[in-house]
Amino acid sequence: MKTGIVNVTGYAGVELARILHRHPEADLVSVTGRSAAGQRLGDVFPHLDDVELAIEPEIGASVDVVFSALPQVASAEACVPFVRSGVKVIDISADFRLHDPAVYRDWYGADHPAPDLLEMSVYGLTELDREGVAGAALVANPGCYPTGALLALAPAAKAGLITERVIVDAKSGVSGAGRGLSLTTHFSEVNENVFAYGVDGHRHLPEITQELRRLRPGYEPEVIFIPHLIPMTRGILDSVYADFADGAFASPEQAKAEVQALYRDFYQDDPFVRVVGASPQTKQTWGNNHCLVYPTVDQRTGRLMVFAALDNLVKGAAGQAVQNMNLMFGLPEEAGLEQLALYP
Amino acid sequence: MKTGIVNVTGYAGVELARILHRHPEADLVSVTGRSAAGQRLGDVFPHLDDVELAIEPEIGASVDVVFSALPQVASAEACVPFVRSGVKVIDISADFRLHDPAVYRDWYGADHPAPDLLEMSVYGLTELDREGVAGAALVANPGCYPTGALLALAPAAKAGLITERVIVDAKSGVSGAGRGLSLTTHFSEVNENVFAYGVDGHRHLPEITQELRRLRPGYEPEVIFIPHLIPMTRGILDSVYADFADGAFASPEQAKAEVQALYRDFYQDDPFVRVVGASPQTKQTWGNNHCLVYPTVDQRTGRLMVFAALDNLVKGAAGQAVQNMNLMFGLPEEAGLEQLALYP
Amino acid sequence: MKTGIVNVTGYAGVELARILHRHPEADLVSVTGRSAAGQRLGDVFPHLDDVELAIEPEIGASVDVVFSALPQVASAEACVPFVRSGVKVIDISADFRLHDPAVYRDWYGADHPAPDLLEMSVYGLTELDREGVAGAALVANPGCYPTGALLALAPAAKAGLITERVIVDAKSGVSGAGRGLSLTTHFSEVNENVFAYGVDGHRHLPEITQELRRLRPGYEPEVIFIPHLIPMTRGILDSVYADFADGAFASPEQAKAEVQALYRDFYQDDPFVRVVGASPQTKQTWGNNHCLVYPTVDQRTGRLMVFAALDNLVKGAAGQAVQNMNLMFGLPEEAGLEQLALYP
Amino acid sequence: MKTGIVNVTGYAGVELARILHRHPEADLVSVTGRSAAGQRLGDVFPHLDDVELAIEPEIGASVDVVFSALPQVASAEACVPFVRSGVKVIDISADFRLHDPAVYRDWYGADHPAPDLLEMSVYGLTELDREGVAGAALVANPGCYPTGALLALAPAAKAGLITERVIVDAKSGVSGAGRGLSLTTHFSEVNENVFAYGVDGHRHLPEITQELRRLRPGYEPEVIFIPHLIPMTRGILDSVYADFADGAFASPEQAKAEVQALYRDFYQDDPFVRVVGASPQTKQTWGNNHCLVYPTVDQRTGRLMVFAALDNLVKGAAGQAVQNMNLMFGLPEEAGLEQLALYP
Repeated sequence: MKTGIVNVTGYAGVELARILHRHPEADLVSVTGRSAAGQRLGDVFPHLDDVELAIEPEIGASVDVVFSALPQVASAEACVPFVRSGVKVIDISADFRLHDPAVYRDWYGADHPAPDLLEMSVYGLTELDREGVAGAALVANPGCYPTGALLALAPAAKAGLITERVIVDAKSGVSGAGRGLSLTTHFSEVNENVFAYGVDGHRHLPEITQELRRLRPGYEPEVIFIPHLIPMTRGILDSVYADFADGAFASPEQAKAEVQALYRDFYQDDPFVRVVGASPQTKQTWGNNHCLVYPTVDQRTGRLMVFAALDNLVKGAAGQAVQNMNLMFGLPEEAGLEQLALYP
Repeated sequence: MKTGIVNVTGYAGVELARILHRHPEADLVSVTGRSAAGQRLGDVFPHLDDVELAIEPEIGASVDVVFSALPQVASAEACVPFVRSGVKVIDISADFRLHDPAVYRDWYGADHPAPDLLEMSVYGLTELDREGVAGAALVANPGCYPTGALLALAPAAKAGLITERVIVDAKSGVSGAGRGLSLTTHFSEVNENVFAYGVDGHRHLPEITQELRRLRPGYEPEVIFIPHLIPMTRGILDSVYADFADGAFASPEQAKAEVQALYRDFYQDDPFVRVVGASPQTKQTWGNNHCLVYPTVDQRTGRLMVFAALDNLVKGAAGQAVQNMNLMFGLPEEAGLEQLALYP
Repeated sequence: MKTGIVNVTGYAGVELARILHRHPEADLVSVTGRSAAGQRLGDVFPHLDDVELAIEPEIGASVDVVFSALPQVASAEACVPFVRSGVKVIDISADFRLHDPAVYRDWYGADHPAPDLLEMSVYGLTELDREGVAGAALVANPGCYPTGALLALAPAAKAGLITERVIVDAKSGVSGAGRGLSLTTHFSEVNENVFAYGVDGHRHLPEITQELRRLRPGYEPEVIFIPHLIPMTRGILDSVYADFADGAFASPEQAKAEVQALYRDFYQDDPFVRVVGASPQTKQTWGNNHCLVYPTVDQRTGRLMVFAALDNLVKGAAGQAVQNMNLMFGLPEEAGLEQLALYP
Repeated sequence: MKTGIVNVTGYAGVELARILHRHPEADLVSVTGRSAAGQRLGDVFPHLDDVELAIEPEIGASVDVVFSALPQVASAEACVPFVRSGVKVIDISADFRLHDPAVYRDWYGADHPAPDLLEMSVYGLTELDREGVAGAALVANPGCYPTGALLALAPAAKAGLITERVIVDAKSGVSGAGRGLSLTTHFSEVNENVFAYGVDGHRHLPEITQELRRLRPGYEPEVIFIPHLIPMTRGILDSVYADFADGAFASPEQAKAEVQALYRDFYQDDPFVRVVGASPQTKQTWGNNHCLVYPTVDQRTGRLMVFAALDNLVKGAAGQAVQNMNLMFGLPEEAGLEQLALYP
C-alpha cells in the first residue's frame, strides 16, 4: 500500500511520517512541503533520518491514499484532485468536517472550495463511525479537542441521558498550535503561563455540536467550549460537565455506577479508547493512540463529569488518521499503532 | 511593627519572609521551622540571604502579629496561644476558614482544636470583607483556589444574577502543593502532564460555598470545583461557568455589557483586583498581588463565564496575608505589595 | 526467550518493560518490585496497561536473562544468585562497572558483595566492546552520562589524538535521578532552574576514566566531569572539550576535517550512533536508542569539542540494556529498538 | 531624574520599564517602540498596567539618560544623537562593547556607525570598572553571558593565576534570545530539549576576550565559549574551567582555600556579587540583580572551576543597566534594585 503526505513539514505531517515509516503494511512513498521542497526529509527533521525521502513540491508517485496536513482552505484545494481521481484521501485539516457549507463559511471566513464533497466526506472519529470510515473515499480527520470531547460525551449523549447544556473546558499542550511561529507559541510567553483562548468561539465548537447532534435524533446541544493553553508540548485533557436529564437516575450513587458501566460497555471493543477508573493523565498517552476516558458523577450536585486524555498529535491527529486508513484498507485497526506511551 | 512567621520553611512561609523583609512598616523579627531550627534562614534559602535571622523552634521575640504557615490542625494549635494572649494572628492554613466545626470535621477528618475561635475568625478575602479584616484579631487567610473563584463570582452572586449551579474548573501550578515531597510533585511526573485531582471533593470546595452563601442571603450555591495540576511553578487560573437567573438579562449582548460594567464598578476601589478586557494570563501576575478578572457572557448559550488569574503564593497566600495585615494595622493596603509582575 | 526485570518500579525498570513488551523475540515473564508487590503492573503504571503481569516479590518464573534495575549494592546482591546459577544478567546499576574493588569502595562507600564477579563482568557500552558483550554472562550496563561521554571521546582517545586533559560538561533531564523523592527532583525546585551538582566528584567519573584508559594502552586521562540538572524529563547532552596531542594536526581546519572523517569511519557500522554534521539536540533522540555525536574543532584555539545527545532512559539505560541482550542472544542488534524519536 | 527607553517592546526593554517604574529616584518619562507606537504601554504589556505611558515613535520628552534596547547597529544609530547632544546613554545592545572597529566588523558584519564613540564608551560590567562607569557619558552594557563569565574569571585572571586556556560552557534560558519569533524559540522546539549553539563562534566571545585582556597587562586568553539553550525562561549559568599557571599553588587543597579567599576578598564590597560556598542555582537569582559566584578547584586534576548564576534579564541586562545609571548619577548603587529573588 502506497501512501503520501501533503505538507509533511508541520507537526501533524512529521508525526504521520514517523508512524507510517514503521507501519507494517504501508509504504510512505512521497511527501510534499513548500518551504523545504528539494531537501532530504531527514535533513530537515533529524528524527526522521531513517526515512529515505526527499521533500517534493507535489506528490510525485502513484499512491493509494493521501494524507493532507495543510491548513484549512488550502487543504481542500489540494485534496479535491485526488478525490476526483479516485485516490483515497484523509484530510487532517478542518476542511471536510462541517457538512453545512454555510457553517463552514461562518467559522472559516471563506466559501468552501468543493461543497459537493462535503456530502460524501466521513467524519473520522473512528470509534463513532467505524462503518462510515471503512467505506469512505474521503475522511475528515477530527480536530484534537473534539476527539476527546466527543469520546467523553458520546455514550451519555447517545443514551439520551444528558440535557443540552454541556461545558467542555479543555487544556492543551502547545504543539496543537502547530509549527508556525506566533507570539502565543513563543517559549518565553507560554512557559510558566496558562490562559483561556478562543473565548468568543473556537473553530472546534461547531464540530463538537454537529457530531453530538448526529448521535441522537432530536438532540440539540448548547455547548460551551473553552480551550486553555498550558506549558507542555503534547497532550490534551478535556474536562466535560453536563446535566442529567430529569429522572435519568434515582441518585448520584446510582448515576455514577450506571454511567461507568455504560461507558465500559460502549467502548468494550475499542482498542484505543480505555475507560479508566481514576482521573487520567495526558502523560499516560504520550506518543500513543489511546484516549483515556474517566466518567464520574459529582455526588454533591448529581452532575456528570467526564475527563478525557489523549496525545493531540496521535489520537488527536496523525494516529487517528492512520487508524482510519487501516479501516479504509481492511487492515487490522491497530496496525502501526501498537506503541506504548512513553513514561515519564 | 514586629512580625513573626511560624513555619517559615514552606513555600508560603518563605514568600511571606520575602515580602515582609521589604515591607516599609513591618519588621520580621522571628521565624520558626521544625526541620531547620538552628540554621540561618539565608543558609537554607539562599534567596533570603539578606534576611539576618536564624530559624527558631518557637517564636522567640515579642511580636505584634504572627503569620502561621503550618499545615492544618497543627496550625490551629500553634495559633491559639497567640490569639488568647492578644497577639494578632493571620493563619495561612485552612484551620479558621470554615465557621462550622462539623463541616471542618467532615473535610479535615479531625475535631477542631479551638471551635470557639471559629466564631471570631474573619475570612480574609480582603476585597469582600475589608471592615471585618480591619477589626479582626484572627484572620483566616483564604485558600489559593477560593481567592480566584470568589473574586470571579462575587459581583454576580451578590447581585443575585446567577442560579445556584456553578462550575469552577481551576488550573494550578505545582507550588500550591507545597514543599513537601510526593510523587504528584516529582518533576518527571508533573512535567509534560495535566490531570484533574480531588475529583471526589477538594477541601477548597466548602470554603467557596460558605463564602458565596454569605454574599447574598438565601443563596444556596451548588458548586462543582475541579482543580487541575499543570506543569508550571506559580499561578492559578480559575475558569468559572454559571447560569444566569431567569430574566436577568434580555439578551446575551446586553448581559455581557452589563456584567462587565457591574464587575468594573464592584472592584473600582480595589487596588489589587483588576477587571480586564481580555482573557487574563497567570504570567501577568507572576510574583505580585494582583488578581485579574475577566467576566464575559457566551453569546451562543447566554451563560456567564469568568476567568480569574493570580499568583497562588502571593494573592493566593502570602501577599493577601500581608494585605490583611496592612488593614489590621491601619497601614496603606498596598504597603510592601507594590511590586510589578515579572515578565516574561 | 524469557526475560525478567528485578525492580521494575523505577524509571529504568518501566522503560525496560515498555521496550521488552514490544520486542519481537523476547517475552517479559516476570517483574519484581518491593513497594508494589502484589499489584498489577498496569494498575501502578497505566501506560503499561497492556502488559499482563503482576509485580512479584521475587522473579517467579524460569528466565533466560534478568535485568536488574535496583540501586547499587542491592543490585549486586540480587544479581549474584542468577549469575551463579547460569542465568545471564544485565545490571543497570553501577555495581559491576568498576573492575577494581578498591575503586568501588572509594566511590560507593561499601565493600563489593561479589568481587570475584567484577573480573568476569563486561562493561556494556555496546559499540566499544561488541564481542565482549556477545560472550558475556554478566553485563554491567553503563551509566547514562558515561555512555555519551565515552562515545564522544572514544575515536579520538583510541587514535591517540588527545592529551590526558579532558572536560565533560554534561546537562541532564531529571528522570536520570530516578523515581525516588528528593527536594532536588521536586517540581517547583527544578523548574526554571539550572545548576551543577556532584562538583566534588560524581560516581560516573571513575567509569569514564576506567573505560577511556582501556581504549589505548598507556593513556592516563585526567577527567573533569561536571553534571548539570536542567528542567526537562529525558535527555542528556555531554559537551566534551579536549586538547590535541602536540603535532596531531597541522592546522585547526585540517583537524576538523580529519576528526569528522575519523568519527564517521569509527561508527560507520553502528546502527545507533550517528555522527552528525551539526550540533545535536536531545529532542532528536526522545524515546529512541540513538546517540548523536558531533565532533568539531574550535578554529580559534584548535581544541577538540564533541557534543553527544541521547535519551538517558533509552541509550543511557534500558535501550542499551536491550541492545546488549540482543547481542548476548545472537539477535539482530536493533530488534525491539527500531522506534523513531518522538518529535516535537 | 528623567529617563527614557528606546525600544521598550523587547524583553530587556520591558524589564527596564518594570525596574525604573519602582525606582525611588528615577522617573520614566518616555518609551519608544516601532511596532506598537501609539498604544498604551499597559495595553501591550499588562504587567506594566500601572505605568502611565504611551509608546512613542521617538523619545518625546527631555531626558537625563536614555537606555537603548534596540538590536545592534540600529542601536548605535539611535544612541549617537543623544550622546552628541550631551544626554547620557546606556546601550543594552552590543554596539559599543568592542573597542576595535575591525573586531566589530568581523563579528557583526557591518561597519560601525560611529567609530569615534567606541573610544569613549565604557564597558559597563559595574564591578570591574566602577570608576569608569561613574564618569561615563556612554555606557556599553555587557552581554548576559559575558557578565557571568567575566565575574567568574576576573579575580583569578587579574591575579595572574590562570593560563590563557579558558573554557566557558554556558546554559541559558530562552528569554535571552529576545521576543522576536524564530523556530529556535518556538515552545514545542525548545521544551524538553537542550543543545549547544553558536558552536563556530558566538558574538559574546570577543567581549569576554577583550575584557579579560584588560584585567592584566600581557594576558592573552584563548577562550572557548559555548552557549547552550535550555528549557526555561530566565537564568544563565556559566560553568568556567581554567588551568592554573605553573606553580600558582602547592596543592589542590591549598588552591581551593586560597582561591575562595581571593574571590571573597575581591567582591567583598560588591552588593550584587555574592561569592557562595556551594554550587549556585539560577533560581536563586530569579528577578533580582545578584550574580552568585562559586569558585572551586577540582581536587583530582587541580584545575580551576567557577560557576556563576544570574538572571539574564536583570544582572545580565536591565538590572545592570540601572546599576550603571545609579553610579553615573551618584545615586546609591542599589537604588531600585533591592528586590529579593522570587522562589520557588
